Amino acid sequence: MCEEKQISAAVIRRLPRYYRYLGDLLEKDVVRISSRELSEKMKVTASQIRQDLNNFGGFGQQGYGYNVSYLYSEIGKILGLDKSYNVIIIGAGHLGQAIANYTDFEKRGFKFRALFDIDPKVIGTSIRGMDVLPMSQLESFVKENNINIAALTLPKSKAGAVASDLVSWGVKAIWNFAPTDLNLSGDVVVENVHLAESLMRLSYNMNAAESKDGRKGNISWS
Amino acid sequence: MCEEKQISAAVIRRLPRYYRYLGDLLEKDVVRISSRELSEKMKVTASQIRQDLNNFGGFGQQGYGYNVSYLYSEIGKILGLDKSYNVIIIGAGHLGQAIANYTDFEKRGFKFRALFDIDPKVIGTSIRGMDVLPMSQLESFVKENNINIAALTLPKSKAGAVASDLVSWGVKAIWNFAPTDLNLSGDVVVENVHLAESLMRLSYNMNAAESKDGRKGNISWS
Repeated sequence: MCEEKQISAAVIRRLPRYYRYLGDLLEKDVVRISSRELSEKMKVTASQIRQDLNNFGGFGQQGYGYNVSYLYSEIGKILGLDKSYNVIIIGAGHLGQAIANYTDFEKRGFKFRALFDIDPKVIGTSIRGMDVLPMSQLESFVKENNINIAALTLPKSKAGAVASDLVSWGVKAIWNFAPTDLNLSGDVVVENVHLAESLMRLSYNMNAAESKDGRKGNISWS
Repeated sequence: MCEEKQISAAVIRRLPRYYRYLGDLLEKDVVRISSRELSEKMKVTASQIRQDLNNFGGFGQQGYGYNVSYLYSEIGKILGLDKSYNVIIIGAGHLGQAIANYTDFEKRGFKFRALFDIDPKVIGTSIRGMDVLPMSQLESFVKENNINIAALTLPKSKAGAVASDLVSWGVKAIWNFAPTDLNLSGDVVVENVHLAESLMRLSYNMNAAESKDGRKGNISWS
């Protein structure tokens, strides 16, 4: 239902954070919450929250507040979390294993199917029931298991070629942890997690916070 | 020198990416590059590059291009990478170990000093020469080793309390991987890496790419 509406990019950008807070409330068995209470928790204005959430129908009622479970579920649908995805991880080093061990992702519909690596020391092992397979089995695995998403936790020198192969075999989205930009053809979705850039933003902000000109107050990294 | 100037937040937000591309060029022994060539590599307009980099002095010369090494070094200074930072990691699970194993961070001035954990199985081990220490030693270690930055790779239920302690002991910046927002007092810098939110943006964009309304084209996640 919500997909019929035009929702602004700025609102959509904020949705994962709303989803996280609503999930925390659900875990605590909170049934409803006012925009004022949510505002205090999230450190944004109540007016912003009302404007954002009014995009998703009339379930914020004067004197009642928002139904937490319903709102959580509606935002989940917008984010595509009502569907299920088959995910593989290329690179079974520490980062790949860290991702394989996040059980929260599975609850949200991301089903991790296998890891792939070139290192004989890890090939043949398994992580939470997921096999670590050799790269020679990648093509057949992707094609036979309807893999939608691949997380790339491998060196930047390998990432581009592996990503191109994956896309040619039908993968629709790349979750890229390699410190390089992937230039892929077609309507493939690439979501980058550049840890080094994150750390540079941190050091920039540390220095801005220490400098006298108060530059930090003007910077928004979101 | 550059710190005297007023540089817009939007420019600063783009700097880590320039820094990464210039670093790649340096590795390939490229001495100079034109805005057009850089534009083709980075998939942004040459005009944007000229405008952005003109903030850092007159070293982009007509007919010459940019001096790669000088520009890399100047952008590094703006990002605070000409300084050195003492960093610890709280949580020596896979993610903590992945971060400890990134040698690139060290080259940029981030000196990882130790990891901390509560798990007796990892306490007493070492990772690339860094000890994994018990949490009971955290306070004295932070105070005695002038620790500036702490990476938190621990469960969200523990992150808030540990972060507050760290700040009270003198830590100035938190690199937070726990899926929770830290509300810290003072001018502490918090840089969040919320992997679950990144994965939700990916699934949102996958569905937007598949839907007919072409919503994806209007969304910028940067």
